[in-house]
Amino acid sequence: MSDTALLAIDWGTTSARAYRLDGRGKVLAERSAPLGVLAVRDGAFAAALATLLGDWSALRVPRIACGMIGSRQGWVEAPYVACPVALDTLAVALVTTPGDELVVVPGVTCRDAADIPDVMRGEETQLAGAMKPGDDRAIVVLPGTHSKWARVEGNKLVAFSTFMTGELYSVLLAHTILGRLAVPAAAGAPPGPAFATGVARGLASGAVAHDLFGARTLVLAGDLAPEAVPDWLSGLLIGREIRAARLWAHHGGHDGAVVRLIGADALVDRYALAFAQADVAVERGRADAAARGLWRIARRAHLVRGGTPVLQ
Amino acid sequence: MSDTALLAIDWGTTSARAYRLDGRGKVLAERSAPLGVLAVRDGAFAAALATLLGDWSALRVPRIACGMIGSRQGWVEAPYVACPVALDTLAVALVTTPGDELVVVPGVTCRDAADIPDVMRGEETQLAGAMKPGDDRAIVVLPGTHSKWARVEGNKLVAFSTFMTGELYSVLLAHTILGRLAVPAAAGAPPGPAFATGVARGLASGAVAHDLFGARTLVLAGDLAPEAVPDWLSGLLIGREIRAARLWAHHGGHDGAVVRLIGADALVDRYALAFAQADVAVERGRADAAARGLWRIARRAHLVRGGTPVLQ
Repeated sequence: MSDTALLAIDWGTTSARAYRLDGRGKVLAERSAPLGVLAVRDGAFAAALATLLGDWSALRVPRIACGMIGSRQGWVEAPYVACPVALDTLAVALVTTPGDELVVVPGVTCRDAADIPDVMRGEETQLAGAMKPGDDRAIVVLPGTHSKWARVEGNKLVAFSTFMTGELYSVLLAHTILGRLAVPAAAGAPPGPAFATGVARGLASGAVAHDLFGARTLVLAGDLAPEAVPDWLSGLLIGREIRAARLWAHHGGHDGAVVRLIGADALVDRYALAFAQADVAVERGRADAAARGLWRIARRAHLVRGGTPVLQ
Repeated sequence: MSDTALLAIDWGTTSARAYRLDGRGKVLAERSAPLGVLAVRDGAFAAALATLLGDWSALRVPRIACGMIGSRQGWVEAPYVACPVALDTLAVALVTTPGDELVVVPGVTCRDAADIPDVMRGEETQLAGAMKPGDDRAIVVLPGTHSKWARVEGNKLVAFSTFMTGELYSVLLAHTILGRLAVPAAAGAPPGPAFATGVARGLASGAVAHDLFGARTLVLAGDLAPEAVPDWLSGLLIGREIRAARLWAHHGGHDGAVVRLIGADALVDRYALAFAQADVAVERGRADAAARGLWRIARRAHLVRGGTPVLQ
């Protein structure tokens, strides 16, 4: 393991993932543990880190982390920095844990047109990893529990917007009347034809609080099978997210910008289908964006030096 | 109790309420029990009815019910009738329980502009009770778990639209990240100033899946107190419902129609505030709309006769 130059950790709410990188930013190995911030009790973060790293703990190399570990409920608070945020902005705002175990990337905040704040913590690092040297104007989309849409210009995060799409999908099926007539979908199953029907509904204008009710009424009317409800609802919510976020990108002057999707394969597949239905061309980013972002930020902060880095 | 002419029952999912009416449609007494359709096991509806009515069971008068008791999960299925629905349409579609214990009002269905079905069961009867002889064009709003907006012309229900506002409010606070930073509100408490702020956000255009996130970010930024989150969220959802439903009423040609609010006082108060903020004049309907509606339908079905009815 003597070729290790950096330990990089994506430390979220429910789980943590560690990467071992060489002096050119290449991922040599990775490890994960269900030791998210909410699973660590009484502030025992040092012990959690030792468990996560295992024999990597003995390596005398810099360690950098992003995610909820830097929140008020985490190990050390790394206060939000405000948009626009360049890579260098993140690098100079790193915060070190009390015992020097780890440096932590700050979260990012911005305000929308109505002056309502928005926040991210962890995604700024994925975005840093997803930026490309040639990016002039790009839209980077990170689908998930709280989808993030970011407007990127060169190495700069200009603005972003959060959509609670994934969390809405989960709670609507688990805790509302819409779940009563639904047969749950197998995790990661590819979308069936009801997904496209839902996307079409989502891409159209409408009131979400009304449109959702279709997940019940279509079944009552015999127009939708109980097994198809999760796909229809997923399509509706993703379609509506795309409709609304495109408007947001338009107001930000990012019409026609490259749209880059980053995330787990099954979810990115769904979004790619929905984007195709909306006639928007997308490219897929690399899945290891968090590790790449941590490497880039560590370079900018001069935590790693020497060699000819693969990444800038 | 010899002046009793009709027993009228509003029999919903979680509770049932019985009214004793005289020969002019006046409510003489009412009783309720937590014997909603979901609480009755093994089809023991006759026993539940006896418990609800108590000594009223001995009265030899017609009995009529509305609500989920007429659903597939209820005592007897009273199939949906399609809009437009006149009072007489409901009267001729009554269904009788197998042992003749009760006649049941059917639910109503309609299709929206995208041909997605909508349904109500119980609200059609409240609407029947809320109609006024002079109504030419009116909008009747029944706020609640599933708010219903109805376009009414004379004695006819022309179309309606459901908004899952109340259910969204509950599950968002109870089961999503938005509840984590919120201090629960006292039931029925009057709205504080954050309600108006939320309504303003709701009346503006925006993506619900994004706007909701403000219930978290405003607290993180110190712009909203944890105690004010429920009011802000309630305002946002009610404001958005009003914005969307006005558009629906507009497309239906009901601009400028009287808007009549029917429901429990605390909720109607909130909606009245939000309507005032949207510059829409509203009138309040009487709270006993279900009993009045059941009386009117019973009259049209000739279940009650004679005397000079107070209600037509």
